[in-house]
Order: sequence, then structure tokens, then C-alpha cells
Amino acid sequence: MQQYIDLKHRPKKTNVIAEYYLEPNRISLEKAANHVAGESSIDTWSDIKTLSPKIIKKLRPYVFSINKKQKIIKIEYPTELFEKGNIPQILSSLAGNIFGMKAVRSLKLLDIHFPEKIVKSFKGPRYGIQGIRKLTKIKKRPLIGTIIKPKLGLTAKKHAKLAYQAWVGGVDTVKDDENLTSMIFNRFKKRIDLTLKMKRLAEKETGETKIYMPNISAETTEMIKRMNYVQRKNGNYIMVDVLTVGFSALQTVRNKSKLPIHAHRAMHAALTKDKKHGISMLVLAKLARLIGVDTLHVGTAFIGKMFETKKEVLDTEREIERQYIKKNSHLLEQRWYKIKPVMAVASGGLNPVQIPKLVKTMGNNVVYNFGGGIHAHPLGTEAGAKAARQALEAVIKKKTLKQYSKNHNELKLALEKWSK
Amino acid sequence: MQQYIDLKHRPKKTNVIAEYYLEPNRISLEKAANHVAGESSIDTWSDIKTLSPKIIKKLRPYVFSINKKQKIIKIEYPTELFEKGNIPQILSSLAGNIFGMKAVRSLKLLDIHFPEKIVKSFKGPRYGIQGIRKLTKIKKRPLIGTIIKPKLGLTAKKHAKLAYQAWVGGVDTVKDDENLTSMIFNRFKKRIDLTLKMKRLAEKETGETKIYMPNISAETTEMIKRMNYVQRKNGNYIMVDVLTVGFSALQTVRNKSKLPIHAHRAMHAALTKDKKHGISMLVLAKLARLIGVDTLHVGTAFIGKMFETKKEVLDTEREIERQYIKKNSHLLEQRWYKIKPVMAVASGGLNPVQIPKLVKTMGNNVVYNFGGGIHAHPLGTEAGAKAARQALEAVIKKKTLKQYSKNHNELKLALEKWSK
Repeated sequence: MQQYIDLKHRPKKTNVIAEYYLEPNRISLEKAANHVAGESSIDTWSDIKTLSPKIIKKLRPYVFSINKKQKIIKIEYPTELFEKGNIPQILSSLAGNIFGMKAVRSLKLLDIHFPEKIVKSFKGPRYGIQGIRKLTKIKKRPLIGTIIKPKLGLTAKKHAKLAYQAWVGGVDTVKDDENLTSMIFNRFKKRIDLTLKMKRLAEKETGETKIYMPNISAETTEMIKRMNYVQRKNGNYIMVDVLTVGFSALQTVRNKSKLPIHAHRAMHAALTKDKKHGISMLVLAKLARLIGVDTLHVGTAFIGKMFETKKEVLDTEREIERQYIKKNSHLLEQRWYKIKPVMAVASGGLNPVQIPKLVKTMGNNVVYNFGGGIHAHPLGTEAGAKAARQALEAVIKKKTLKQYSKNHNELKLALEKWSK
Repeated sequence: MQQYIDLKHRPKKTNVIAEYYLEPNRISLEKAANHVAGESSIDTWSDIKTLSPKIIKKLRPYVFSINKKQKIIKIEYPTELFEKGNIPQILSSLAGNIFGMKAVRSLKLLDIHFPEKIVKSFKGPRYGIQGIRKLTKIKKRPLIGTIIKPKLGLTAKKHAKLAYQAWVGGVDTVKDDENLTSMIFNRFKKRIDLTLKMKRLAEKETGETKIYMPNISAETTEMIKRMNYVQRKNGNYIMVDVLTVGFSALQTVRNKSKLPIHAHRAMHAALTKDKKHGISMLVLAKLARLIGVDTLHVGTAFIGKMFETKKEVLDTEREIERQYIKKNSHLLEQRWYKIKPVMAVASGGLNPVQIPKLVKTMGNNVVYNFGGGIHAHPLGTEAGAKAARQALEAVIKKKTLKQYSKNHNELKLALEKWSK
């Protein structure tokens, strides 16, 4: 293998930069970094005769930074090594064979800087934050959402009824859970028909626009059929399990859908959870923004039922919400050009009592999602939804939940159940 | 959450069984196992009012085995919890949110038993081992293959020329590498045109059927266009990066392709490498067989440039080659019914000198792939291909490589370079 380390090299913003955590396996960090750079671009383990000096000169990667203490390396790659608009090709390079090399013990892809040429080769969200605000006519406040629970087992009729209760109670968005698709006990079309009917009823009664995010995840052609069905039935959103479906099919849905796309990230933690090995949530979120989802689960910023740290969650949220990310000790610079911002979704073990803290930490451009936190309310789903909406009202009116609960019984019961 | 542990429960073969390695996070193994069972099926972190006794009775999972010493648990799920033919739905259940729960420190999905109803809902390979043997007219011996190297940088013309040299040297299959799709310096259509032309020439000269596996990986619609292009140009194989493309798009390709599909597994080790967290290669291989790839990278059974143990590689190979896998201390029983067997591909840092050992260990129903092991031969690609074919001939004629190299100069040079 050729030598790709050059710590004096200064990378260009017009090239791709990847940042990795790297633990070598019985070799030096430098040697392992060199292997990672070669295998992820133009080289292999042996001195192949077919790798010409011309190719090396034009397409070679540069390992330009090695932080021995933190075991973090940065590699610059010529943009020509990547096919525009092709996520699988980018991943097969920067997150491909390198994980399996015996030269590395652990490897985590922490961040990727995408240059203008690559960013502009993707469509990004069709709606984004402003599009969703226009759709819902909610100007500034966060959105409140629920996931129908139990995730599996309800009939389509019962599902639609619960959605109705949640909507009239006060939630803005109702979504299917990640493993609810078209089941023997709850067929897709029937669920769509009944739930959208209940959506229209709830909209009429509340005077608010409500969102239903049906899970269309399946083989691509089937998924597009389901998408078209939702569009035909005047649905206003679709949902995809972006990781179990995969990036190629997600991009197909983005290209063909007229509706905003909710991205559920089931399976992400198989890649993101280990601090030393895999792919960071930040990278997955950047890929989802490039392809163009409109809402994306990012975690909960403080402990729900999931594992991420506040810092990780906020980094991801900022990356999908802002147009420019400044380089710092752990993040690479990223300019998003005309790619619209994605609305973050906080979800996973949340309850209404956490709303003040959530809004303070994560802000207004978020869908706060409550599953168990609504359906486990002592008085049931509608009361749970009311409690969540009341908690949000309290924040908007700058009152404490305790103050506001004096005249709002559902919030009071939620406080009794979930405080401390 | 409900209680799902019942160590006296006896699982049915008609249900789905999942086997996990599980390290709990500050709670008991039992409690964590219960969380995994609930979250992967019908339950959530709180006592939701909407989870009725009827649903629990009909759809509850059973944690029926907990091995405290090995930290291995087994869970049975009613088959009704899964949508037939829908890999994303299955993964979003058995490999979804559970990885991210704070109740678990580490979690690895080791194996899944698929019952008849689910197995039969998939098509499996269109060709499989016998189909590939029929296509190539190679009755019994293993296939020898190469990957064009360098993986990126060659022009389409140079790519085609190298393929030709490898084919006339003696390899049966030539494949693109995982990150070569349609590049500025090597456009897809031009590469297909030129390489297939060289294939026809090599076939004419050698009298053998040669295979070219062009990498069509991209967004689904684009990928289907590339597949159709290969079909129109009389190609005889296509290749997909199954993990970076994703399972939905892979299934779409399987449904629409008339050609056999080669599955490159780039990115698998982000999921499979860590012994304690992620998804095993065995599970990924089972999913690929269900969907229906015809050849699949499984590793090298002894050390090349990749990390897997011999046992892991052989388990994966058997799982995709056989019609029945017997339950043992670490594998779940699996019957494959009419799903055809997949041909294993050994690849990653191999050289021709290893062929006798490879054939002894992995057998005849394998494509042995050499990238650097052919293109780094002292006399170049054609000689490298000759050396590989000579090594295989030696095995077939029951001679040692040393004996056979006396009259075969390319093999002799390979022995000098790669022995010891």
C-alpha cells in the first residue's frame, strides 16, 4: 500500500473530509490510519501493479490530522472519488470495507464534510421546517405528537379511534410505530382509510390542521404503492423507517413523493450506540437531510428510554436545522447551501411533565413525541394529549406546570404520575 | 411494561425466534431481557392503557431461555407480529429501537429462526448455486474471480483491458469494486460497453463462459436503469452493495432482474464486527438469502485482510448453502424449504497460494476472489490470474503447489512472493 499520511497537508473545502475514531489492531495508529485512507479510496493491502502514479497523484487521499490522545484522524478525499447524488457509493467508500479490516480494532465514522458539489447533487427536504409550519399553520410553537401504542396489536378501527382521541386532546401529529406496516390484524389500506377519516373529523372539531404519518416501509415498489395510496386518500404525510428500508429506497420515495416524509430511525443504534465502532447519528442525520426527509428522530436531549447524551442530540439537531455549521473541536464545517432544514423529532420515553425542560433545551423547531407518555395517562389517551398540550401552553404563557395545573386537571394528574 | 419471561415455555417452530447477546445497563439480565422482548414487539416503557389483555394473550413474546453465563437470551414471537415478505418490518422489530434502549449496555442480534410462513413469503435466489453452475458450465470445481484494482481511478478502457487480461489468464468472474459506480473518470455505460466487449473476446479465445459483475448500486430507479442497461447489452450478472443500498431496494432489484445478483457486503462490519453489539453476519446473510442474492461475500475462513473467525465464516457459508441447519449450542434451527442455496464468495486479502487451504476449508461451492492477490503478481494481472487457475488445477489434480509450479512459471512466482 502507498503512503497517504501528510500532516502538513491543508485540506480544501471543495473536497470531502471524513473524521474517524480509530483504534489500531497491533500496529501503530499511523499505519492503521494509512490503511483506512487507502482502502476507503483507491488502494488495497498489496502493491498492485495497476495503481499508476497518475492515479495516485490525481485521486490520492490525505490523512492530514492524527490526534493520538483522542485517537481521532481526519482524511481528505478528492471529490472526484464520489458519485454525485449516490449515497450508497459514498457509504461504500467512507463506511465500507474499512470497518472489517484486521488492521483496525475499532473504527467509528464521526463526521463527513460534504463540499458544495456533493451537497447540490441532492434534493434535500421538499418541505422542511417552514413547509411543515405552513402546512400546519403553526407559526412558532413546537409541535406535539404521539405514536399510537401498543405498537402492534390494535385493529385498524381501534388505531383510528386512538388517533382521534389524541388529536382532539390536542396533539398535532399522530404516527404509526416503526414495526406497524400492513399486518394481518391491521391492514395498511383499512388503517389509512379509517385514520384519515378520523383526522378530518378531528380537524373539523378542533379547527386545527392535524398530521397523520402512516408507516409505508416495505420493498420499494410496494412502498411507492402505499405512498400513492396515502396521497390518493388525501393524507398529508408519510413515514419511512429510513435505516431498515435503506438509503436507495428512501431516495426513491423522496423523488416520487409529493408529501413530507417522516424519518423513523429504528436500527440506528446498532450503528451509533458504541462510542468506538460504527457510524455516528450525526452522519446518518446528514445523509437523511441530503436525501430529503422533513422530520427526523434525533433523541431526547435528556434521559428518556434511550441512551444518547445531551451533546450528541443537540449536535444532531443543529446539524439538521441550520444552514451553516462551524468547525469546532469535534465537528467538521458544513455549509448546506439551498438544502432546507429538517425539523427534529424528540421521541423515546418522554412524558408531558418534561415539556418545559425539552423546550428550553431543544427549542421550538421540534416535534415533541409522547407514546407511553400520553397513552399511560391515568385517564387515558385523550387526557394524556390534553396534558401535553396544557404543558406546552404553560410554557408559552410563561407559567410553571404547577401553576398551570391548578385549572387544568389532566396536567395535574400527569404531574402526579410523572413528577420526580 | 408487562412480564414476558417464562423459562418453562416451549417455543413453536411455526413462530419466529430471535437469539441475542445481551449486557444489561444497571439492571438485572432478566429485566433487560424483558425490556428487549416488549420493545421489539407490542410494549413500551410505561403501562399504557391501550394494551389490552386480549392483545397480550394473542401477540405476547416469550423470553424462554436466559443463559446468564454467556449472556445469551432467546425470545419467541408470534409470527402474526411480522409482515410477510417485508424485511424492513422484520428488522424494525427484531433489530430496531432495542439497540438504543438505556436498559441495555450492549446487544447483538445473533440469529433469527424464520418459520415456514415467513420463509415462503420470500422469493430467494433466482439462480442460486446450480443456476450459476449451469450458466458457467462449471460442474464441480470452485470459481476463481477477481476484483478490478485499483478500486477507483482506472478509465473504462483500462478497466476493460484488465478484465480481459484476468479472464484470458483464467479467472471465471470479474467484478467491479464496491465504490466503483458511475464516476467522472469511468462512466457506467462506457465501462459496461467496453468490458462486455472484452468479455466476449475472452470467451471466444478461451472457450469458457466468463462472468462480469458490474456494480449497479445507486438510488433504486437509477439502479434499475443500470440493471436494464446491463441486460440490454447482454451482460450475464449484476452486483449490488446490499447494505449501503439497503434491503428494500435490493428486493426491488431481485424482483425485476433477470440476471443473477452478486451481493457485496460493504459496511457490514459496522454492524457485525463488535462481538457484543450490532447484528451478526449470519443474520445479514439469512436476510440476503431470503430476498434472493445468488452470490454473497462471507469472509475468508482464515486470515486475509479481514477480521472474521473461521467458525463465523463457515457458519455463514453453511447457512446460505444448505437446505437445513440443525440447532446447536449457538445456532437456531432453520429450514429453507424451496429457497435456493446461495454461492459463497471468499474475498479480502487472499492470494493464489492459499487456494489449497481455502478449498479444503470452504469447499467447491465458492467463488474464490483475488484482488491484490492477482494484480500484484510480479508479472501483472494476466500472470496473476494464471497463477490462481494453476493453483486450482493443482488442487484438482491432487498435486502440491510446489510440485505443480515446476512446469507453471506464474504459480512459481506467486509461491515466491506469497509463501510463508
